[in-house]
Amino acid sequence: MSGWLCIAGLGPGSEALVTPEVRDVLAEATDVLGYIPYVARVAPRSGLTLHPSDNRQELDRARAALALAAAGGRVVVVSSGDPGVFAMACAVFEVMEGRPDWQALDVRVLPGITAMLAAAARAGAPLGHDFCTLNLSDNLKPWALIEKRLRAALGADMAIACYNPRSASRPHGFEHTLQVLRETCEPDRLLVFARAVTTPNEHLVCVPLAEARADMADMRTLVIVGSSTTRRVGRFVYTPRSVVGECA
Amino acid sequence: MSGWLCIAGLGPGSEALVTPEVRDVLAEATDVLGYIPYVARVAPRSGLTLHPSDNRQELDRARAALALAAAGGRVVVVSSGDPGVFAMACAVFEVMEGRPDWQALDVRVLPGITAMLAAAARAGAPLGHDFCTLNLSDNLKPWALIEKRLRAALGADMAIACYNPRSASRPHGFEHTLQVLRETCEPDRLLVFARAVTTPNEHLVCVPLAEARADMADMRTLVIVGSSTTRRVGRFVYTPRSVVGECA
Repeated sequence: MSGWLCIAGLGPGSEALVTPEVRDVLAEATDVLGYIPYVARVAPRSGLTLHPSDNRQELDRARAALALAAAGGRVVVVSSGDPGVFAMACAVFEVMEGRPDWQALDVRVLPGITAMLAAAARAGAPLGHDFCTLNLSDNLKPWALIEKRLRAALGADMAIACYNPRSASRPHGFEHTLQVLRETCEPDRLLVFARAVTTPNEHLVCVPLAEARADMADMRTLVIVGSSTTRRVGRFVYTPRSVVGECA
Repeated sequence: MSGWLCIAGLGPGSEALVTPEVRDVLAEATDVLGYIPYVARVAPRSGLTLHPSDNRQELDRARAALALAAAGGRVVVVSSGDPGVFAMACAVFEVMEGRPDWQALDVRVLPGITAMLAAAARAGAPLGHDFCTLNLSDNLKPWALIEKRLRAALGADMAIACYNPRSASRPHGFEHTLQVLRETCEPDRLLVFARAVTTPNEHLVCVPLAEARADMADMRTLVIVGSSTTRRVGRFVYTPRSVVGECA
């Protein structure tokens, strides 16, 4: 019997956004591993072992998943959103890098609806033109690099989807982000704060930069910073597809 | 009877990547509008009128869809991938902007698996760290702006997902893109050419910049340019989550 490992995206929260592909591998799995609240989304059943683990244990979890697959298990590592966007796929490849014997395993990444797509859809289409996707957490990179990327995106007038804007252990990063925005953007630049989109706790607000405050974001919030052309239409926010004659 | 309009993403091609949410609204629709090959993915049935239309008719299609919903229809505009990423959602909001009477309609955007997520998943996790998403078509914006954004992304060492790299009517843009990459990146910078991912015509190659040629891309290809840290592990390509001490 040969095992396999799927690194699967559960989407942002709603079961209606879980792809049939992911649903199917979960139905075949012998083992499901992931961060506690994501594993809690998988229904227990006979023949399936759930392995919830704490946050910040990504490499241990990846190693355990690969070992189970190597031993013949049908293993699914679950991420919320998409597993390839600031989630578990990278951790699995990092572990595989040090274990050539595991590189021939049947490993697949199954995409999911990442938070920025769900948040953008709820808001309208703020990511309808060129955009950047930044992880604002400085747990794994220096703040100076985050700021450099933020300024590069703003300088080229791209919209920006910001993951992990703020947490209890990193209360200041998003305040810095807002300072950079205030230095470089007009006060009516639009920001979307999308919290827990597609869950019962969903909360979405769109405000101009002048009214944005750091405490509008927490670790479940995805923040979208519009480009200079992003605007409101009725209750929606969108970024037009056309840019006419505007360029440095 | 009050009509509604959903702008729905069908994902990159495989039916296993269509979300249940999209499947459900298609089952309730009276009218489905979209580009010919996307409407062809919707099964005909009694009570459903299919309205396929040609490429480059986005605004006419959006207007027709809104008019049908205003008249009480249950209308779905289908895009491939995600409707908010270089697709139909923006066209609908552009039309709504000029028609305040349509702004109170029941309009929803339903996210889908956009091409870059499907391509990245097949390749490994090349978008696992900060990245930019650029539309390389200069149909609706000047090439100078595309180049400015490309250079900004490269200067801040972000990976780049390139949509619409090359078409019969725009044969030169992607050659320019490769020239910019050759000026600014090392020759072993990794590029992923992902064509028609999750369809029977899927073709995926990963090459170093030194071996990349413009004719490796066409209008069905999504190109991912890795960052300086993107590397291979076994048959996969990924961008590590950590950046240690590297910053200008």
